[in-house]
Amino acid sequence: MQLSREIDALPLSAVSQIIQLANQAGWTDTLHLAGGEPRFDPPPKVLNAVTRANIEQWSKYSGFTGNADLLDAIVAKLKLINGIEATPENIIVTPGGSSALFTAIRAVIDHGSEVVLQDPCWEHYLSIVRLAGGTPKRFAMKRSGGREVPDLESLESALTPKTKAILLNTPLNPSGSVLLREDILGILDVAERHDIWVIVDEEYEAFVFGANTHLSPAALSDRVITLQSFSKSFALTGIRLGYAVAPVAAVDAMRRVSLYTHMYPPSPSQAIAVRALSTDLAGYLEKVRQHYEDKMERLFAHLSQIEGVTCERPQGGVYLFPELPRMHGRAASDVLINDYHLLCVPGEVAGSRGNNRVRFFIGVEDDVLDEAARRIRSYAARCAPVLAAPAFG
Amino acid sequence: MQLSREIDALPLSAVSQIIQLANQAGWTDTLHLAGGEPRFDPPPKVLNAVTRANIEQWSKYSGFTGNADLLDAIVAKLKLINGIEATPENIIVTPGGSSALFTAIRAVIDHGSEVVLQDPCWEHYLSIVRLAGGTPKRFAMKRSGGREVPDLESLESALTPKTKAILLNTPLNPSGSVLLREDILGILDVAERHDIWVIVDEEYEAFVFGANTHLSPAALSDRVITLQSFSKSFALTGIRLGYAVAPVAAVDAMRRVSLYTHMYPPSPSQAIAVRALSTDLAGYLEKVRQHYEDKMERLFAHLSQIEGVTCERPQGGVYLFPELPRMHGRAASDVLINDYHLLCVPGEVAGSRGNNRVRFFIGVEDDVLDEAARRIRSYAARCAPVLAAPAFG
Repeated sequence: MQLSREIDALPLSAVSQIIQLANQAGWTDTLHLAGGEPRFDPPPKVLNAVTRANIEQWSKYSGFTGNADLLDAIVAKLKLINGIEATPENIIVTPGGSSALFTAIRAVIDHGSEVVLQDPCWEHYLSIVRLAGGTPKRFAMKRSGGREVPDLESLESALTPKTKAILLNTPLNPSGSVLLREDILGILDVAERHDIWVIVDEEYEAFVFGANTHLSPAALSDRVITLQSFSKSFALTGIRLGYAVAPVAAVDAMRRVSLYTHMYPPSPSQAIAVRALSTDLAGYLEKVRQHYEDKMERLFAHLSQIEGVTCERPQGGVYLFPELPRMHGRAASDVLINDYHLLCVPGEVAGSRGNNRVRFFIGVEDDVLDEAARRIRSYAARCAPVLAAPAFG
Repeated sequence: MQLSREIDALPLSAVSQIIQLANQAGWTDTLHLAGGEPRFDPPPKVLNAVTRANIEQWSKYSGFTGNADLLDAIVAKLKLINGIEATPENIIVTPGGSSALFTAIRAVIDHGSEVVLQDPCWEHYLSIVRLAGGTPKRFAMKRSGGREVPDLESLESALTPKTKAILLNTPLNPSGSVLLREDILGILDVAERHDIWVIVDEEYEAFVFGANTHLSPAALSDRVITLQSFSKSFALTGIRLGYAVAPVAAVDAMRRVSLYTHMYPPSPSQAIAVRALSTDLAGYLEKVRQHYEDKMERLFAHLSQIEGVTCERPQGGVYLFPELPRMHGRAASDVLINDYHLLCVPGEVAGSRGNNRVRFFIGVEDDVLDEAARRIRSYAARCAPVLAAPAFG
């Protein structure tokens, strides 16, 4: 009995491999900076979300694109927070942000189509595009004016007649770059000339630092499919609820995909999400933004003082993505995980610009960040002699 | 901006089209016998499933294949109800039974592979196989010894070197046939000789009538992927929770699919499912079985007395699938829906043997069944003169 060769060729993600490894090793001093699990509380009203009153809904089919009260709450959220004018017909709720991603990409591409991704980007994007039957292509992000911006020439040259969409992530996992208005207009211009979709994953929209602000490309164009979720911004990873906002024709296509992959989203999770959105949204989101900015500054300050470590201050997101020295052939992440029990993700999985980089999740307790920094310092010190040694030792 | 041509070619299901039509028409006397939404209560303990105590879990990532307490509860259920010996490593929980279906099929097939389905079968199977990149083939169910059985010659001749799996449904939607031990052994023998998977959708396992019993093929062979869910048996359609039971290698492949389609199942739904399984399972399931048997006998008795209507008594499931006369060129379902506001599913969508048949969901209030029968009688009476008229009348 043969299983799918295509599926066999899809890698398990680095995070799930690393968590599996750590669980099996049984270390007692593990620091978890690999996965991105929020440590702050969900909005207060969530605590009363599920009552006997709505338990009857659980044995009822949801609306195919989500329940009416949730769709209305999302419409209000999009207007207040994102400046996106939408109606319930522009929205499809999915069991998680990953499901919104898969559903949107599958709705846009055919077998053999191409989707263009940022380099670096979340490793899952590559597998999601492949699972949907497409081929991922890459365009470069580059340093310019003290920040990371899309390289439009690289983008333009990645496009072929098979390209159906550009998939963006802002703030970007793992490097934390935030697309500004000028970046977005440049990308929209390319997309318009080639008449392709722009799909934007806004999972980390709530976490933008300093003078930067999050701008939703859908506020500027109607060729955009916007993906959002309740996992990171609302600290509700477990409810598995995401959504896509798009022109009605695209929502119709996504509905065809969802009907045959998962049918419709879970009702208890939708009841919880409605309550999450009925909180003082702007106030709540500013609190979690500040939480992550504090975490980022704390670990950033630590890393900036470690010799051999190069770390740019991210504009947003929930990760730091420093460049670390290698140790006699072993990748930094390999040593940090196995010798220092500091779980992190190797930068290579994010793309060609990830070599020698390591992704750290920043949203953990302060003492965990401090201890992580101590172990990184110790690691870097062990590397130093190797760095200083002449090439032929 | 082009959307996917492949997705555009996937039809919206008959049920969703019919419900949409009825909602738009605004009829005040609609009878809903199209979709299969249970009307009985979920197990009593479910009412206390979600508490402040487990609300913390909602902001936590679930296990990738499901939470440990749910996996353990499923292991116990499989042993008690299905005679399947499994460990947690043999199980993957998914956001709904449809998701278990898509995940299993995608894990087994490559682009261009073939999957063999029963004729008749649930129309979704065709679209799910296509969405997964495969081609659906059919084999015939036939009347034999007073019941509907798989035609093994038809099955054998549907197989090609591209065939990766036989997808079974027992009890079968829409015709209500139940696979007995001899049927299953026959199919397993074919699968073994061709070294292909047998995937069994047991969504309706709880609803088996008369002297028939549900037998899980996985109790007889290790080349089986079993799909079950909480939607129909536990009257919990809204929690969207299903699962697959399979050899570890197949679960590993399914995990790769789920990681990139939905990541993992929703935690609130899992908490509810654990409580559902901690009820007096055998007692509860016997109660819902009797509920459906009563409904079936009630509508079956009605239909058996209507001239021009042919109805076999189903062995199980939640539908009746009678053959109705056509009305001067209009299909029976078309007239029943538009002229009689009796929502039902045209048999054609189930396969070639569905011509002139109509699928009625039986799990509704008794007075709805009675009123549905009155309308069907009225419809049949209108057809009678046409039936009696000479062909060139």
